[in-house]
Amino acid sequence: MAKNFPTPARSRAALQASARSNVEPFLAMDVLAAANIKESAGDSVLHMEVGQPGAPAPRRVVEAATAALARGRIGYTEALGLPSLRERIARHYGDAYGVAVPAERVVVTTGSSGGFILSFLAMFDPGDRVAISAPGYPAYRNVLKALGVEPVEIETSAATGWALTGEAIRRAHADRPLTGVLAMSPANPSGTMMSREALADLGRVCGELGLWFVSDEIYHGLTYERPADTALAFDSDAVVINSFSKYYCMTGWRVGWMVVPEALVRPIERLAQSLFISVPFLSQVAAEAAFSATEELEAVKAGYARNREILLAELPRIGLPDFLPVDGAFYVYADVGRYTNDSLAFCRRILDETGVAVTPGLDFDQARGNRYMRLSFAGSEETCIEAARRLGAFLKA
Amino acid sequence: MAKNFPTPARSRAALQASARSNVEPFLAMDVLAAANIKESAGDSVLHMEVGQPGAPAPRRVVEAATAALARGRIGYTEALGLPSLRERIARHYGDAYGVAVPAERVVVTTGSSGGFILSFLAMFDPGDRVAISAPGYPAYRNVLKALGVEPVEIETSAATGWALTGEAIRRAHADRPLTGVLAMSPANPSGTMMSREALADLGRVCGELGLWFVSDEIYHGLTYERPADTALAFDSDAVVINSFSKYYCMTGWRVGWMVVPEALVRPIERLAQSLFISVPFLSQVAAEAAFSATEELEAVKAGYARNREILLAELPRIGLPDFLPVDGAFYVYADVGRYTNDSLAFCRRILDETGVAVTPGLDFDQARGNRYMRLSFAGSEETCIEAARRLGAFLKA
Repeated sequence: MAKNFPTPARSRAALQASARSNVEPFLAMDVLAAANIKESAGDSVLHMEVGQPGAPAPRRVVEAATAALARGRIGYTEALGLPSLRERIARHYGDAYGVAVPAERVVVTTGSSGGFILSFLAMFDPGDRVAISAPGYPAYRNVLKALGVEPVEIETSAATGWALTGEAIRRAHADRPLTGVLAMSPANPSGTMMSREALADLGRVCGELGLWFVSDEIYHGLTYERPADTALAFDSDAVVINSFSKYYCMTGWRVGWMVVPEALVRPIERLAQSLFISVPFLSQVAAEAAFSATEELEAVKAGYARNREILLAELPRIGLPDFLPVDGAFYVYADVGRYTNDSLAFCRRILDETGVAVTPGLDFDQARGNRYMRLSFAGSEETCIEAARRLGAFLKA
Repeated sequence: MAKNFPTPARSRAALQASARSNVEPFLAMDVLAAANIKESAGDSVLHMEVGQPGAPAPRRVVEAATAALARGRIGYTEALGLPSLRERIARHYGDAYGVAVPAERVVVTTGSSGGFILSFLAMFDPGDRVAISAPGYPAYRNVLKALGVEPVEIETSAATGWALTGEAIRRAHADRPLTGVLAMSPANPSGTMMSREALADLGRVCGELGLWFVSDEIYHGLTYERPADTALAFDSDAVVINSFSKYYCMTGWRVGWMVVPEALVRPIERLAQSLFISVPFLSQVAAEAAFSATEELEAVKAGYARNREILLAELPRIGLPDFLPVDGAFYVYADVGRYTNDSLAFCRRILDETGVAVTPGLDFDQARGNRYMRLSFAGSEETCIEAARRLGAFLKA
């Protein structure tokens, strides 16, 4: 018989969560929770709030994991990852970008999340300042803050193609010295890409100013107009973060990778030995097979491309003509300023009244997010068509 | 054709790894690497250096993972873990300890490693001081340091059963205020357990002094004389860390859990949303099945018990009569002070000359580790018998 959970013998009122744990929640997760409640009540919900491929992992990935399970023995691997996977990832840089990357500089991580924790700890000390863009991925801000690093948000606009520029970095650095710069192309929440020149400029300015340059390339492979460039093509000292979650459809496997300068390999290895011990074994074996699943993955991408065409045609028609350039990823970041100055309440109403789950811009841009919302088109074509129809009726009313 | 990895256009000599990345490496990992090199050269190596069960994951665990793979869709879960797994873990506290734990206080983590990162960030701010024991698990020291928290090592001895005591905590706190205390029973590297009274005393003193009390219970289930007590039986505010890696034989799956006070649930959820997103999906599904694999797991444990008997009988005979009480886990922490004052070199010689891979005490105790070494008996009976034979010949020579 279970005793009751013991009541404290004495007061521990003094015990509070740390100051640094006071990071922002992900509103997208709150929307997801609300959407799930609505759905379980029997309502029809169209999920456009999560940045997660609708397609399952490729057949070869599942087969590789199944075979590894049958072989037994799911143990720790080297802290930097399975040597064969590091080799395979290194080879990918030759195949995809024509850039030679030594396997020794490849670090397998527990999703890109693990890469952020390890690389931020290895590059930055408490009090350091790192430039990020607004709008941008909210975990950057939260992880940096939790690790004592100050995120310096730089507002981007149409004038610079919604990208950080060398010029903006120089200004921020002159204002108060930076330690690093973090850029993402294609970007979350917009899908907007940096031009080759813009990326090279950013790497060059980081080099001149002696700043770490981190390039988050998690949406590479998911581009609709031209392929994305890796920062490594211009800057061998760039820290590249990537993952098997998006193009490779392996979110729940939690496996990603980094390419880091030689000077960071051993510090990251030491940190990984204590902070992570090992990346999940099955996920590493499965990830290696993902590189042989191109045909299946390109078919999934073709579906995103169709979804994108539908939304690019429909959104202007239903009253959402303003959004950032959708060059890649699977998001539309739409201006809803003509309807609201409180996108959080607006997105709640949309969910309540239409069953379309979308994410308020506040997650991505604390200053201007109140006039934006993000729609993910990583789901099915039917979802996109029906969502556009429901949104159109809502906006007309 | 791959271009060469581009040479930097300019010097970035200023770029160095952060000061906080300068944590100690795990010597056990270096021994493992050296042992693997020796083995791949064709030498016979007996692995007693790693804290990893020799047995594979239980059949039911593998079946559950295989079935989940066949169902497809390996996606993100809630940041705090699958609700059904949280429920199942909560129920385990009733079954195993007779303590009722609400599922809302259970947090599923990416191994106990993920639990350390999240709970340390949620409890401690930079500059806080946390008492740990020496000898002890080296990752505590390294993770705390990497996160800006000062580990306060308290030397334990036979006089207090090799355990932290309330008295020692009072002294350290009076010297300079602590924020928390971290204890482990059964302990790594020794397997030594705290008595029921000692654990309750520690919780009580933490309560009186207003300190967080963290109880690492990762070796629970692996006990040979009496079952281990959970800190939650005496202190409902204790933060309990646990994992499926040891008793449940699921190291490479990277899945563990915490039980935390209500005040920490939401801070940890916010941190987990940004720092981890989700624990690996397959591992969570598989972990739930681990609770139904008791028969198989008890058979594995019976093997450890036989290995333990062999070593307890053989070690004194071959010249290693002094080791800490082996109450649980699968380690012997043996005093080799009569042979060396440099256990790192000593362990290297043992590997070179006998092929027995063991871990030098320096990993666990920076002051006194030079006269200790750790042997893991999580492997086979044959390994233990043959290792004792080879070590005996070595020590005689």
